[in-house]
Amino acid sequence: MDRPIHPDVEPLGFLLGTWSGEGQGEYPTISPFGYRETVTFAHVGKPFISYTQRTVATDDGRPLHAEVGYLRSPRPGWVEFVVAHPTGVVEVDEGWFSGSSLRLRSSLVAATGTAKDVTAVERDFDFEPGVIRYSLRMAAVGQSLAHHLQARLQLEV
Amino acid sequence: MDRPIHPDVEPLGFLLGTWSGEGQGEYPTISPFGYRETVTFAHVGKPFISYTQRTVATDDGRPLHAEVGYLRSPRPGWVEFVVAHPTGVVEVDEGWFSGSSLRLRSSLVAATGTAKDVTAVERDFDFEPGVIRYSLRMAAVGQSLAHHLQARLQLEV
Repeated sequence: MDRPIHPDVEPLGFLLGTWSGEGQGEYPTISPFGYRETVTFAHVGKPFISYTQRTVATDDGRPLHAEVGYLRSPRPGWVEFVVAHPTGVVEVDEGWFSGSSLRLRSSLVAATGTAKDVTAVERDFDFEPGVIRYSLRMAAVGQSLAHHLQARLQLEV
Repeated sequence: MDRPIHPDVEPLGFLLGTWSGEGQGEYPTISPFGYRETVTFAHVGKPFISYTQRTVATDDGRPLHAEVGYLRSPRPGWVEFVVAHPTGVVEVDEGWFSGSSLRLRSSLVAATGTAKDVTAVERDFDFEPGVIRYSLRMAAVGQSLAHHLQARLQLEV
């Protein structure tokens, strides 16, 4: 049964569906790399949108990263984002949503005992009809905040 | 392409697949409730197992909770579990895995600005072939650690 989208997240309803595209990664401690990404946003009628992400290497298709979480919007123009990473990291982000852009900043990043140390994440999203562009900055493994990822995704039809 | 399971998580390989069953919830601040649960564990050949969970109410099938995350086992007998909740909560658990039981205790629970306050989670799992039993205790909304959930899940064939 299809349930109507919850009013809290209706302004984010354009995200619903599966998006895919290509991105580039870099960081002071690693070699640059290309990736293909698939993101799915879904809802069940409650005040959140679920988020599932996977990337594979452009060169040989091997699995790279994945992450999962939920978006909430407890008041108009404000978005909360909780994310779990298979690296043993959890992330809590919050920030402004304008309709065409979303600027998320981590309020907390924490990890299991053996995970690599990540201390801050900033995610900038820009939206056009059928297109998401994002960039991600990260402070990790002793580095200060530095550019890590950028990608362009298109809504699959 | 099916990739072989990573040796780190091979002892948890019996979890792979989709499990379903019924559970009962209670907490000092709410009325008891029954739920039907579906859990899926999957892997892509990397050192983690993904976890996706959904529950619906036994009485009318309305969506109740959901949670997503990843299991890691950086050394034999030790499991790390990171979870994101649509309530705006993230959870980092660690604990012992004996083969037939898993005892996870939160090392950190954190949340977005508007989420309900959860301060600790304890998850006990007991395994038999094709059956998972779990119970979950939680400290939240000013209450000390108290029993919240228990369920019995069977592997779908």
